[in-house]
Amino acid sequence: MEQGTIKMEHGSGGKLSKALMEEVILPAYGNPVLNEMHDGASVSTAGNKVAFTTDSYVVKPLFFAGGNIGKLAVCGTVNDLAMTGSVPRYLSVGMILEEGFSIADLRRIVETMCQTAKEAGVMIVTGDTKVVNKGAGDGIYINTAGIGDIIEGTHISPKRVQPGQDVILSGYIGDHATAIMAGRHELVLPTSIQSDCAPLNGLVKEMLIAVPQIAVLRDPTRGGVAATLNEIAEQSGTGILLEEDTIPVRPEVEAVCEILGFDPLYLANEGKLLAFVDPKYSSKLLEVMHSEKMPASSVK
Amino acid sequence: MEQGTIKMEHGSGGKLSKALMEEVILPAYGNPVLNEMHDGASVSTAGNKVAFTTDSYVVKPLFFAGGNIGKLAVCGTVNDLAMTGSVPRYLSVGMILEEGFSIADLRRIVETMCQTAKEAGVMIVTGDTKVVNKGAGDGIYINTAGIGDIIEGTHISPKRVQPGQDVILSGYIGDHATAIMAGRHELVLPTSIQSDCAPLNGLVKEMLIAVPQIAVLRDPTRGGVAATLNEIAEQSGTGILLEEDTIPVRPEVEAVCEILGFDPLYLANEGKLLAFVDPKYSSKLLEVMHSEKMPASSVK
Repeated sequence: MEQGTIKMEHGSGGKLSKALMEEVILPAYGNPVLNEMHDGASVSTAGNKVAFTTDSYVVKPLFFAGGNIGKLAVCGTVNDLAMTGSVPRYLSVGMILEEGFSIADLRRIVETMCQTAKEAGVMIVTGDTKVVNKGAGDGIYINTAGIGDIIEGTHISPKRVQPGQDVILSGYIGDHATAIMAGRHELVLPTSIQSDCAPLNGLVKEMLIAVPQIAVLRDPTRGGVAATLNEIAEQSGTGILLEEDTIPVRPEVEAVCEILGFDPLYLANEGKLLAFVDPKYSSKLLEVMHSEKMPASSVK
Repeated sequence: MEQGTIKMEHGSGGKLSKALMEEVILPAYGNPVLNEMHDGASVSTAGNKVAFTTDSYVVKPLFFAGGNIGKLAVCGTVNDLAMTGSVPRYLSVGMILEEGFSIADLRRIVETMCQTAKEAGVMIVTGDTKVVNKGAGDGIYINTAGIGDIIEGTHISPKRVQPGQDVILSGYIGDHATAIMAGRHELVLPTSIQSDCAPLNGLVKEMLIAVPQIAVLRDPTRGGVAATLNEIAEQSGTGILLEEDTIPVRPEVEAVCEILGFDPLYLANEGKLLAFVDPKYSSKLLEVMHSEKMPASSVK
C-alpha cells in the first residue's frame, strides 16, 4: 500500500476503506477508545462543563518548515480549547482526501498527528475519511474537533476586558505565515524561519493555575495579532493600544515581510497567545511564562 | 451579498469573513452559546460520560430530492450520536467553501442546517469556515462533529452481539442513494423516490427507554445494510443471516436498481437504523418503533 495513491474506493465504506483504516490510520492513532470502531466514541470528562471547538485545515503546501498540515490540525484545535480555559482531552479527525493523493504522504501526516496528540496529552478518539474526485480537492483537507475540561475558577470572555489591563504576547510573531509563504513560493530562507506551530495547552494550564483572573486568552492565528486584537476590541468595546517596539519580530521575518510587502501584525501564528490581565497580575504571569521557556513580551 | 459568490477573502479572518458570519451564518444559527464568538464553546453536559463523533459530507449534487448537504450533515452526526446510545446535544460545523460558490446556495444550506438542528433538538455551538481556490473544492464540503449525553443503563457495543439475536431494520432501504444517483445523472424518477434523510434520535431514545438491553444500533449509511452488517459480523465474530423477503425495498427503487445494476443492500440510507436485540424484547421494540410512525421490518 505504501507506494500507492488514494482511490475513490478508499472512501466507499468497503474493503479498501477498511484496509486504509487498518494499515494506515489505526497503527498510528490506535487506542482503546478508537479501536472500538463505533459510530462515535464514548468518553469521560472531568465534570459536566466542557469546551467544544472545531477547525478545518486547508494549508498549502502540506509540508513546510517546522511542520505539516497534520501538526497544524492537532495544535490548532488543542490551542483553541486551551484558549477557552480548558484542558484539551479528546479530538476527532475528519479527513477529505483527493483521489490520487500519495499514501506515503498520508502516512507521514497521520504519524505527525499521533505524535503531536501525544505531546499535547490528548487522545484521538473518533474520525472519518472521505475521498473526493481528482480535481475536487487539494491533496488533503483535515477537520479536527475537540473536547476539553473547563478549568474550574476560570472565566475567559472578551466581556471581561477592561481599560487598563495589560496585553501579554507570548513570543515572536509572523514565523508561521512566513514559513508557509516561503514554502508556497519555494523561496530559500534562513533555516531559522520555521512555523511556530506548537501545542500551548501546557503553558495555558500553568498560566491559569497561577493567575485564574486572566480575562481573555486568544491565539492570533488567521489574520494575525491585528485581526485578533481588533475582534477583542470590538467584542469588549475597549480600545487597545499597541507599542510597536514591544512586539517581537525576528529580523529575518521582518526582512522577508519588507520584501514581500507584508505586515507581521497581520500574519498567522500557530504557537503564540495573547493574554489580557489586570496589571497587578502581570509580573506573576510573565514569571510563569518565562519559566515555561516561551519568550514573552508585554504590550500595554 | 445575496447575489454574490464566495471570494478568497471570505476565508481570510478579516472584514469579509466577518460579514459572512454576521449576514449569513449567525442569523440562521444564532444562539447564546454561538453568539459568544469565542475560539470554542463552553457547554454543559448531563454527566461526565459523553459520546463524541464526526463526519465530513462531500455529497454531489448538493441539493437532491428530500434534502441537501446541510440536512445530511446535521442528520448524519445526530444519528451517529444516537447510535452510540446517547442523546445528541451539541454540534460543531466546519465548512470548506470553494471560491465562486453561490452565497444564495450557502444561505439555503445554512438555513436547512438550522431547521434540521431544531427538529433534532441539538444546538450548533461552534464552527469554522475556510475558503479554498476555485478548482480545489466542489462548492461546499461540510464537517460536523457532535457531543451527546450517554443514556444511563445502555451499553451499545458490537461485542454484545450474540447468536440468536434478532436484527430489526427500521424501514425501506436504498431511498437516499437512489435519490442521489437520480440527481447526479439528472434522471427523471417518480417523485416518491426521495432521500430518507432524517434525524433518528427521537426514535432511538424511545427504543432505549423501552428496551435498554439493545446490544447494537447502527445506521446503514455508506456501504448500506450489507457493509454495516458485514462490519458488525466481523467485530462480533457472529454470522448474520438475511432473509431477502423481509427487507423492505420500494418497487420504484428496485426498478431503478435493476436498470442501473445496483443492489439495494449496498446503497446508503440516511434515516434508517439496524438494532440487534434478544428475541424476547423484539415485539416490545417493534411496538415502540411502529408507534413512532417509522416502518419496521424484522430480519432474523
